[in-house]
Amino acid sequence: MVDLQNDLFLRACKRLPVERTPIWVMRQAGRYLPEYRAVRQQFDFITMCKTPELATEVTLQPIDIIGVDAAIIFSDILVIPEAMGMPFEMHEGRGPVFPSPIRNEADAKILKDIDPADDLKYVLDAVSLTKSELNGRVPLIGFSGSPWTLLTYMVEGQGSKTFSAVKKMIYSNPKLAHSILNKIADAVSAYLSAKIEAGVNAVQIFDTWGGILSKDDFESFSMQYISKVISQVKRKDEPLIVFAKGVHFSLDQLADSGADVLGLDWTMDIGQVRKKFGDKVALQGNLDPTVLYADHEKIKQEAVKILNAFGNGSGHIFNLGHGILPDVPPENLKALVNVVKEESVVYHTA
Amino acid sequence: MVDLQNDLFLRACKRLPVERTPIWVMRQAGRYLPEYRAVRQQFDFITMCKTPELATEVTLQPIDIIGVDAAIIFSDILVIPEAMGMPFEMHEGRGPVFPSPIRNEADAKILKDIDPADDLKYVLDAVSLTKSELNGRVPLIGFSGSPWTLLTYMVEGQGSKTFSAVKKMIYSNPKLAHSILNKIADAVSAYLSAKIEAGVNAVQIFDTWGGILSKDDFESFSMQYISKVISQVKRKDEPLIVFAKGVHFSLDQLADSGADVLGLDWTMDIGQVRKKFGDKVALQGNLDPTVLYADHEKIKQEAVKILNAFGNGSGHIFNLGHGILPDVPPENLKALVNVVKEESVVYHTA
Repeated sequence: MVDLQNDLFLRACKRLPVERTPIWVMRQAGRYLPEYRAVRQQFDFITMCKTPELATEVTLQPIDIIGVDAAIIFSDILVIPEAMGMPFEMHEGRGPVFPSPIRNEADAKILKDIDPADDLKYVLDAVSLTKSELNGRVPLIGFSGSPWTLLTYMVEGQGSKTFSAVKKMIYSNPKLAHSILNKIADAVSAYLSAKIEAGVNAVQIFDTWGGILSKDDFESFSMQYISKVISQVKRKDEPLIVFAKGVHFSLDQLADSGADVLGLDWTMDIGQVRKKFGDKVALQGNLDPTVLYADHEKIKQEAVKILNAFGNGSGHIFNLGHGILPDVPPENLKALVNVVKEESVVYHTA
Repeated sequence: MVDLQNDLFLRACKRLPVERTPIWVMRQAGRYLPEYRAVRQQFDFITMCKTPELATEVTLQPIDIIGVDAAIIFSDILVIPEAMGMPFEMHEGRGPVFPSPIRNEADAKILKDIDPADDLKYVLDAVSLTKSELNGRVPLIGFSGSPWTLLTYMVEGQGSKTFSAVKKMIYSNPKLAHSILNKIADAVSAYLSAKIEAGVNAVQIFDTWGGILSKDDFESFSMQYISKVISQVKRKDEPLIVFAKGVHFSLDQLADSGADVLGLDWTMDIGQVRKKFGDKVALQGNLDPTVLYADHEKIKQEAVKILNAFGNGSGHIFNLGHGILPDVPPENLKALVNVVKEESVVYHTA
């Protein structure tokens, strides 16, 4: 932390005093940026993930171009299943696809324990290179999908509207689901620990698909393994953020999970959540990503509404309530970042 | 009501004593039934909606085959935009498509007021024919999409993951959005009133896409128009059900809307919701539709969990938390219906 020129993000994660509210946005290294698309035109997505120089290049773009307060290493949550033995393909317009999804015990046998230093060396190299290129300008975040979210992809094999395959597994063969989830949780823990070792300043767990479960099923098939990961990740001072989209029904458990920061989607009232949890966790979020389609005046209005709902004091990391959409004009994100930088100062004058 | 042999559903809607909890399921007249698919193989979807004999045939199938306690008239929410001047097409595997979506003032000019007796005569004829064929066995439900949900389809032109077109409209031209929503609300009110006049025993408003909005936007662009519809629908004794998927953040407003019954998706705890609202509204729901992929023992276990969470007394209509999925085995739905019929009796012995 001592080397950082801008450590607002890390201080906000720990609810230490800040001069203004820090901001970064999920998927900030992504398709909405013409500079990203220029790289993407030359290389396929998987090559970008696996080539540290390319991953570093696009990780740095939003720092240079947009001016966010944290970098997040460019990668994909599916690098873990791949390292466990499931190669994936990117199909344009259809997202990632596992040609051989896991549906039964025999399929699951192929899953192996991972050694991040070997199996995911390219991510760790990207972390080191990015750290060096960042040169202390802002902190670097590492991330992973939650065990449940990874399981959904591994079982479905691709995006799904109904998640029938993974739901069939948890209802008809919960033992198999739990045994795979345990294995994934160990892999996620090892992966996040290795990223911290390689130099990231904070880590975020994304539970993109926790919200498709009922409360009981969420606690059994997702929360339990998020908790396992949090207890297993080896960290010194690095904050841990947990973001479970659509999980309005188990925020208590997430706040009690040992995470330092709770990410909120845009359906939550950040002021009410803060009132409920007090000083237990910092909060990250939660502007509706589609507000970035609006004009700058409306963006300002909605951003100020969120700053105001959170209120005075530290413990708020401004973010969108989900990833930035690919067709957002970059100048609108820039307008948001500037508004948060300017308008948040008044909430931090004691 | 006097003519009905089974009025459990209507009594539960009004929180009057019942001998057991009634059950019906959303999309019960649908693709999961081989008998439905047999009709669908001969006729396209729109023809089925527009031919009273066909609509009646598939409406009755789940009554005869599954044994649910209410029928819901087979139709589609998009018949209203069509009556307002927007023809739609069904594209196999892609759902309904409006070739000319509404994006600006000029597009909106084509929207006309509807006269259900003329523009939607085929639905009213289907209601009359179904009533006559049902011959008092169970009540008949009529339905409509909410104004907001209809607007999303009319602006997007088709299914969407990000709803960028309709979000762009509400943020960049809220005046236009409100003016179209007002027009849709009047059409929905006239349509539901005409269905009641034609003989349906209850009506349900589906707000399928309310959950993509933040709380403030939901109240401004959806709730306001649901309330308008509820106040305008001409009904005598017919209960009104409102179901807004994913709208955990504005249940208070929905419970205060004047609806008799509040539908819940499977992410809500029906016991907690009942505790919160007491005798204000009856509750409908809320089994995770994917539980119907499980074996009968698991289905029983999950159904009993919900009966038990609701607890003793009337005011519960058992249903799924969303529509039944097309690849569910019909015998699993039948098992659910039987379990609810048998296991719910103990909650209604004073």
